[in-house]
Amino acid sequence: MREFELLSRIFEDNGALPAHVLLPPGDDMALLSLGSTTTLLVASDSVIEGRHVPWGIDPAVIGRKAVLRNVSDVAAMANARPIATLASLVLPPSIEQAGAWRLQQGVRDAARAWNAPLVGGDVATMSSGDARAPIIASVTILAVPVDAARPVATRSAAKVGDGVYVTGTIGGAWDPATGLGRHLDFTPRLATAQELFRALGARLGAMIDVSDGLGRDLGHIATQSGVAIEFSLARVPITPGCDPKRAIGQGEDYELAFTARGEVPERVAGVAITRIGTVVDGGPRVTMIDGTDRIDASTLGFEHDGDAQGG
Amino acid sequence: MREFELLSRIFEDNGALPAHVLLPPGDDMALLSLGSTTTLLVASDSVIEGRHVPWGIDPAVIGRKAVLRNVSDVAAMANARPIATLASLVLPPSIEQAGAWRLQQGVRDAARAWNAPLVGGDVATMSSGDARAPIIASVTILAVPVDAARPVATRSAAKVGDGVYVTGTIGGAWDPATGLGRHLDFTPRLATAQELFRALGARLGAMIDVSDGLGRDLGHIATQSGVAIEFSLARVPITPGCDPKRAIGQGEDYELAFTARGEVPERVAGVAITRIGTVVDGGPRVTMIDGTDRIDASTLGFEHDGDAQGG
Repeated sequence: MREFELLSRIFEDNGALPAHVLLPPGDDMALLSLGSTTTLLVASDSVIEGRHVPWGIDPAVIGRKAVLRNVSDVAAMANARPIATLASLVLPPSIEQAGAWRLQQGVRDAARAWNAPLVGGDVATMSSGDARAPIIASVTILAVPVDAARPVATRSAAKVGDGVYVTGTIGGAWDPATGLGRHLDFTPRLATAQELFRALGARLGAMIDVSDGLGRDLGHIATQSGVAIEFSLARVPITPGCDPKRAIGQGEDYELAFTARGEVPERVAGVAITRIGTVVDGGPRVTMIDGTDRIDASTLGFEHDGDAQGG
Repeated sequence: MREFELLSRIFEDNGALPAHVLLPPGDDMALLSLGSTTTLLVASDSVIEGRHVPWGIDPAVIGRKAVLRNVSDVAAMANARPIATLASLVLPPSIEQAGAWRLQQGVRDAARAWNAPLVGGDVATMSSGDARAPIIASVTILAVPVDAARPVATRSAAKVGDGVYVTGTIGGAWDPATGLGRHLDFTPRLATAQELFRALGARLGAMIDVSDGLGRDLGHIATQSGVAIEFSLARVPITPGCDPKRAIGQGEDYELAFTARGEVPERVAGVAITRIGTVVDGGPRVTMIDGTDRIDASTLGFEHDGDAQGG
């Protein structure tokens, strides 16, 4: 089964949603109205041992990554700060008590560090029928706008003429041979996103966090904004030592990709901001320019398939 | 590992929580402040194939039960109505596309039926290393108070002298031989809880949903309220055909247990309300009176251990 195909459809086949759902499934977070002036952002993400982290890793790393992935979703809304997390922890029957605690501590400590205290959840063990069952941490994060009078950044707000930017460097977040790498302990770009929101105001366009791969994530912006994106491979800030083309598709970067109009600072909250391309007119597509080649980059995305990450 | 021991501790070892967490882990839902007058209730619960439902069941039943368990938590807060759900779905590598859709449809349809539209979530498949991996649905539910000016019902609000009540009948919610039963498709007592809240006002004491077993769930009220509870086995409305003592410990009833002062209606929103006992002075304990026997009922609780439910 193609996970992305399923993912892209499964939460969208949702019928008519009531008026209090201001931003339905399909963005980094959903946005709900809780009254005349109060809105809430919410998202869920799981980390599965053997899939998103290597088998046998310290359970605290699993819990931490589950929180960090969610904080990265908060960052991608720009005008947002986390307020709480919940965790559903699923344990293999073989896990020892110490491992279960490590898992909870990983969630709890990361949640606290990002001002999103763990306020609830549940723990359950799988049936003993599962020979090699993974540890699974499903985390839900709640967030509120920093400035309630202004909108959050969505994937659908790119406009023709916007510059296209990325934070930090792209590629090398995980080692295909071992599953290790900085995807296990990254800094979600929350401060950078919030500062960009303050600095750019209405000049900020669409924003997304780079988890599926830069090409594919820009594809989400192009599709949801109804625009075309062109970017130059030579301009993408590639992590030293990485193959550039591979980096575009590898994913797990947890950097931000966004569009904006006018001047954009070169460094925000200690993180480099690099212009890589432009939003242009046309049907949804992402074109990567590599010398004289024009490559469809929206399909260059890491799919967390099978044992790809050290399984 | 004793799941209950772990559960009771894992989300409580949480250090100091910020002021916006009005009700920390340990109740049916957490309560958060989102500003001067706005509060939000939130809870997470998982359903694991082979553990909470029998292996090989229609995936839609797994999704539905995950939502219903969460709606039952909303009911237990009495002054609450659901507004949204999120789902993290974990699929075995062997699942067919149709099964994945059935799972999502089970979540979506139940969420819609309970006015808690599915607004987000994620889908991931396990690594192919897992021979017999279960389907897992982790659902988070968001709710708001029906009357924002008044408190929600907690587990800690029982007072000495309160009557102790249950809704519906207790026992027989699942068949140990097959794992089947009404736990797979029950009606969360949301309407009954909301109507009790309206009718009783400040006379309503503590409330909990009966999922672990009546004895054990009354134990949660006793512990968190710092009171003793005495109830008569002969007064408990047992589901016809069930052994009474067994029913007290079986769990998965998804009825409500609550305490209240003064008159309580005998029927609320079509559901029978039965007085079974009284809150009395003393250290936290639950005593079940069976003729001349006095039994500690707080340990009579179903633990979803191993393959207990048709695994």
